[in-house]
Amino acid sequence: MHIDLNCDCGESFGVWVMGDDAAVLPHVTSANVACGAHAGDPLVMRQTVRLCKRFGVAIGAHPGYPDREGFGRRVLPMSAEELEASLLVQIGALQAVARAEGVSLRHVKPHGALYNLAAQTPVVAETIARSVAAVDPTLILVGFAGSFLITAAQALGLPVAREAFLDRGYAADGTLLPRDQPGALITDPVANLAQALQIVQQGTVMAAHGLPIPIEADTLCFHGDTPGAADRAVYLREGLRAAGVHVCGL
Amino acid sequence: MHIDLNCDCGESFGVWVMGDDAAVLPHVTSANVACGAHAGDPLVMRQTVRLCKRFGVAIGAHPGYPDREGFGRRVLPMSAEELEASLLVQIGALQAVARAEGVSLRHVKPHGALYNLAAQTPVVAETIARSVAAVDPTLILVGFAGSFLITAAQALGLPVAREAFLDRGYAADGTLLPRDQPGALITDPVANLAQALQIVQQGTVMAAHGLPIPIEADTLCFHGDTPGAADRAVYLREGLRAAGVHVCGL
Amino acid sequence: MHIDLNCDCGESFGVWVMGDDAAVLPHVTSANVACGAHAGDPLVMRQTVRLCKRFGVAIGAHPGYPDREGFGRRVLPMSAEELEASLLVQIGALQAVARAEGVSLRHVKPHGALYNLAAQTPVVAETIARSVAAVDPTLILVGFAGSFLITAAQALGLPVAREAFLDRGYAADGTLLPRDQPGALITDPVANLAQALQIVQQGTVMAAHGLPIPIEADTLCFHGDTPGAADRAVYLREGLRAAGVHVCGL
Amino acid sequence: MHIDLNCDCGESFGVWVMGDDAAVLPHVTSANVACGAHAGDPLVMRQTVRLCKRFGVAIGAHPGYPDREGFGRRVLPMSAEELEASLLVQIGALQAVARAEGVSLRHVKPHGALYNLAAQTPVVAETIARSVAAVDPTLILVGFAGSFLITAAQALGLPVAREAFLDRGYAADGTLLPRDQPGALITDPVANLAQALQIVQQGTVMAAHGLPIPIEADTLCFHGDTPGAADRAVYLREGLRAAGVHVCGL
Repeated sequence: MHIDLNCDCGESFGVWVMGDDAAVLPHVTSANVACGAHAGDPLVMRQTVRLCKRFGVAIGAHPGYPDREGFGRRVLPMSAEELEASLLVQIGALQAVARAEGVSLRHVKPHGALYNLAAQTPVVAETIARSVAAVDPTLILVGFAGSFLITAAQALGLPVAREAFLDRGYAADGTLLPRDQPGALITDPVANLAQALQIVQQGTVMAAHGLPIPIEADTLCFHGDTPGAADRAVYLREGLRAAGVHVCGL
Repeated sequence: MHIDLNCDCGESFGVWVMGDDAAVLPHVTSANVACGAHAGDPLVMRQTVRLCKRFGVAIGAHPGYPDREGFGRRVLPMSAEELEASLLVQIGALQAVARAEGVSLRHVKPHGALYNLAAQTPVVAETIARSVAAVDPTLILVGFAGSFLITAAQALGLPVAREAFLDRGYAADGTLLPRDQPGALITDPVANLAQALQIVQQGTVMAAHGLPIPIEADTLCFHGDTPGAADRAVYLREGLRAAGVHVCGL
Repeated sequence: MHIDLNCDCGESFGVWVMGDDAAVLPHVTSANVACGAHAGDPLVMRQTVRLCKRFGVAIGAHPGYPDREGFGRRVLPMSAEELEASLLVQIGALQAVARAEGVSLRHVKPHGALYNLAAQTPVVAETIARSVAAVDPTLILVGFAGSFLITAAQALGLPVAREAFLDRGYAADGTLLPRDQPGALITDPVANLAQALQIVQQGTVMAAHGLPIPIEADTLCFHGDTPGAADRAVYLREGLRAAGVHVCGL
Repeated sequence: MHIDLNCDCGESFGVWVMGDDAAVLPHVTSANVACGAHAGDPLVMRQTVRLCKRFGVAIGAHPGYPDREGFGRRVLPMSAEELEASLLVQIGALQAVARAEGVSLRHVKPHGALYNLAAQTPVVAETIARSVAAVDPTLILVGFAGSFLITAAQALGLPVAREAFLDRGYAADGTLLPRDQPGALITDPVANLAQALQIVQQGTVMAAHGLPIPIEADTLCFHGDTPGAADRAVYLREGLRAAGVHVCGL
């Protein structure tokens, strides 16, 4: 029984700080590093890669819509050609930073609105998969478990990692509950651990209609940008370990 | 007798067009492609790489200060650490775009204020050389002939190309005349050709004090962003060929 | 018989030039000056205001989506609150530039995707009208003749100017033909003049189904960003004058 | 005995938060609101103006170098013409936002590198003063007490406010000690209050050489972007009140 634990990071910008990467990164196994488009800047990218290297965390690119004002949470109207060029540029930028630090990228996980749109929209999923394959076909594409992004990546022969959420409620059809619905956000650490264990050990997650639905996950998303994140991470890792679940990279 | 002919390109941005790359690129042997910081954007970068590939022109990165408003012509106050991170990101971005098109980068030539500052400032020259070496130590660093940038690159074991100008006046000390001085800009195609031939065939250039000074050049800079650039390029290539000078890549 | 002739301008950015404002502005009566969001920058704004002042052209703000990469031609997902704040900032910025030159703004005309969306979408139209009214309720809001933007402005008591196009084809319902349809773009100066005269003198425009439809216009849009624009402007003004149509500001 | 207490605010950007304006603003009498160039964005500007209005704080523009990456802390190489245009745009933008909220601007205080450069450089000081006068000659220009900015503003007939610092060490010549020197930063609230009282009551400040130097101040700068800022503000106001110093706007 094993699972990867991934976390978004490197989302500061200039003087503006987002999250406490140095406190959270020691507790996860995969880091999704912002690439300067929705967040991050060259210096932040490099400092984040150094943190990942220091803590032995696998480094991935976390590309998003080129939209700092909207933090990549808005769908920008971009043609497939534009989106592909933007993704090449973002992944390539982080790749060079990693190379300068003597490490290499292991995975790519789209951010925010791009992640969500890619889960549901084949043409966007295919554009992302094609971009990743064009840069390096050994990169693991991380996508929502059961989504079009996973399908598109597999169709191109890319290795994939299916992601599940321990702090979000699921609908009966396997999608996440919208954030404004009751039960969408699960903030209790005990409930988070329970959901994580159920996903890993039983391959199911409790959905909003009260029944478990099947889910196959290779990695769990850990949100590190809230107060007390490091403590929650320790609690979670401890709980997983006690239940015999090994937390390790992809 | 041979020489490389290089040209800045990919300096459009969104709807704004700079130069006529498709007309000029067929006539040069090395292209310096803007990397999205002082000019260019992901789509322009990709379209420019495609043009270079189509015309068989060697592709190089043309990184500059991250300053679209100033087109990289202003010195931004950046620490060595910041500058290095910015250069990694710019070169890496273009590298990924090139890879997606099945080609690879051959050289790096800094742009504008960064090029000028690096010629005269050891610490900036070293920062640039270190950045290039960190991304790929086989990349040729293009710098002003006789400048600190060439020295810094050689000190790190990077291959270099020394650049000379066929349309700029030289001072007695081998630097370029400031643009506001008489004789700084040589616009006559015949004089351009004569200066190019003198540089390549005799290893000298006529300086402002009326005497030839020695210059060793591997590549000549061709400015492609002025009207009639393609015609001037044809005339120059023809003149070089007639004089027995072979124009070929680095 | 009179009509206003308006033209977008100030859409350069840094070193990148768009159109030839100095050649076209002498021939129009109202100038829509970009406000630094989709195009323009502070220096371009000021230089454009000076040109307008020199040629006696009425100055208006031409706000667009804050999206240089897309030149304001993409609909950005913005809340009404965000859009309103952006419009306040854009109009206020140009207002201060005008004040520094001793002139004042006369009108506001939204740009690109914002103009089109406002024509068809009441909530966007109302947001724009509310923003303009908040800055200065004497500003004339320029919108597509017959559109929601005109209605929304009138509902707030703003003066309005209804805009018609002399170089675009109209559908039977009074909307513009999409650019990819035959007849969408009318490039012949003679046809442009004929359409202008029909609009002004008869209050109709020939639609795609071959019949005239009624149109009430206070201003005609002149596109100044194409080669030969100044010549076309002269031809148009001459033709209008010869037909007894007085071209004058709003 | 009275003094104004001013505070920088509105320096968040998109999702990135800087300081806790809602907690600090109730305790100051003048707010310097970032104008979207070094920090802030249209929505942040509007929300900050609303906070100021709610708490009855006088609103001023806080323009800086257009440099989000550097937070306005780097001197950008800008011509006087460019700087003036940028200032017009920034002040005008905030002015329109204020107008939409039914309030008006009371003062302008430059930010960061621009503030420091203006204190020592007549041409920059004059450019700023000219820009402010061009927008509204009744705006109070806030500058470092004894600086060129004050002189330049007075030469144009602008009302001025001379600023002093309660948490910074002064050199014998009346300038601030560089941040890397011992005694440059005074973090003890008791010492802050003492320095404030000495400035207001005695018109002197203790300099690094151990002697008081004369200083004439109309406003004290309160730094609100550090943890516990609201508590420090309460302590300071209480101490001033107890000493008979009335804190009121300019």
